[in-house]
Amino acid sequence: MCELLGMECNVPTDIVFSFSGLALRGGAKGPHADGWGLALYDGPAVRTFLEPAAAASSPLATYVRKNPIKTLLAIAHVRKRTRGPICLANTHPFVRELWGRSFTFAHNGTVRRVRRWPLGQFQPIGTTDSEYAFCVLLEGLRTRFPRYPRRPSDLWRAVAELGGQLGGDGTFNFLLGDGRHLYARCATRLHYLIRRAPFRKATLADDDLAVDFAEMTTPRDRVAIVATMPLTRDETWISGVPGNLWVFDRGALRATLPSA
Amino acid sequence: MCELLGMECNVPTDIVFSFSGLALRGGAKGPHADGWGLALYDGPAVRTFLEPAAAASSPLATYVRKNPIKTLLAIAHVRKRTRGPICLANTHPFVRELWGRSFTFAHNGTVRRVRRWPLGQFQPIGTTDSEYAFCVLLEGLRTRFPRYPRRPSDLWRAVAELGGQLGGDGTFNFLLGDGRHLYARCATRLHYLIRRAPFRKATLADDDLAVDFAEMTTPRDRVAIVATMPLTRDETWISGVPGNLWVFDRGALRATLPSA
Repeated sequence: MCELLGMECNVPTDIVFSFSGLALRGGAKGPHADGWGLALYDGPAVRTFLEPAAAASSPLATYVRKNPIKTLLAIAHVRKRTRGPICLANTHPFVRELWGRSFTFAHNGTVRRVRRWPLGQFQPIGTTDSEYAFCVLLEGLRTRFPRYPRRPSDLWRAVAELGGQLGGDGTFNFLLGDGRHLYARCATRLHYLIRRAPFRKATLADDDLAVDFAEMTTPRDRVAIVATMPLTRDETWISGVPGNLWVFDRGALRATLPSA
Repeated sequence: MCELLGMECNVPTDIVFSFSGLALRGGAKGPHADGWGLALYDGPAVRTFLEPAAAASSPLATYVRKNPIKTLLAIAHVRKRTRGPICLANTHPFVRELWGRSFTFAHNGTVRRVRRWPLGQFQPIGTTDSEYAFCVLLEGLRTRFPRYPRRPSDLWRAVAELGGQLGGDGTFNFLLGDGRHLYARCATRLHYLIRRAPFRKATLADDDLAVDFAEMTTPRDRVAIVATMPLTRDETWISGVPGNLWVFDRGALRATLPSA
């Protein structure tokens, strides 16, 4: 199993505080020491930092924390391997181009029967069920829409439907980003919160690190954070309902769709 | 215009020395201050470090130099923009998945008439002629071969042919990696050398930094380096012939093919 972290905002924000909490679970306060990755969008493009090693002791993870990059959309993952050896090709998040944008995907769980789905244009590079499921999901979107749908809600529904189909073959908690929205499907465990005015102090669940967001925000800022388990001990996290998909846009929850 | 750097080896090698030379040209000793990127393969997968800013003053480029990652195949690029604004989406190298492997591409020159070529499965994320040309090249490979060709030389010839066709529409110096080979097409300027036993000292062309490769190699090591302009002042670099494609494999030049 693994832990997921996503962030989607209405103003460029750095993910350092939340990523610090996640990284602690990558080998220090948690068992997820088999790799980590962080994807940060800039418009339709994404840059990734990937390492097939523990985040908690990674110099690259330290670099990322010390040199914050602001973004509207980010996806991070710490891995405890279940399927597939520890190597770069099996390190989440995975990225593919579709419709001239980078799609980014990270998964928690195991989709045991995923290989009964046929592949199309998108082929896995590594050997995880996660990347395979991502390829099937993207192929489903590609065959439904020749380009990015004019009505975003058409895309949201398609992601929910495909997520539900794949989710029938295993445990399919995932985060998906397309440079505009963050999609978060709950199969077993997923939580979110929206940070907005009035901003307050927040303290990591696994460490004494605290941040007073009131000092670094404006009243119009809105930041959605999604995580497998709550990352802070003094904020109210909302639990996901298994079989539901959340869609975040400009730091707000825009839709909760059935995905089962 | 831009500068290219490629490395292809028979034993995992770090690219720090050559990348240091290239990074100097990214804003300090050269005008290529509009972005830089470095792609490092691990089997069929690649990780990239990208920044739409000058390499010479980049903390991330410093991190990469101080934390060497060994690889059999690497492609790097420093950008002086000609077409397309400075942003992440326009920062080389570009990456796409084909046949379950990461293909990586960096370009020097301008392919002015590239948009007369139709696109297929691969769509540009940014606005450069370079990424557009990469998408056309990959589509040409995809339509020729349903999977990675059994005879690699079939793929080499296809890359040469497609490179020649696109090169007819502009200046098309490029480096292409597929996780197995490094392809290097010379349109105007490209150089290579093979470092092998007996190893000697080498000194950067733009700095006094020197390395004695004899101290860090074994007699069987072989490293091919390709660069727009020679990166060292005390080694013999071989100039490319315009309209030729080099193919490097396990640190050796395996083929020189006409690509015009």
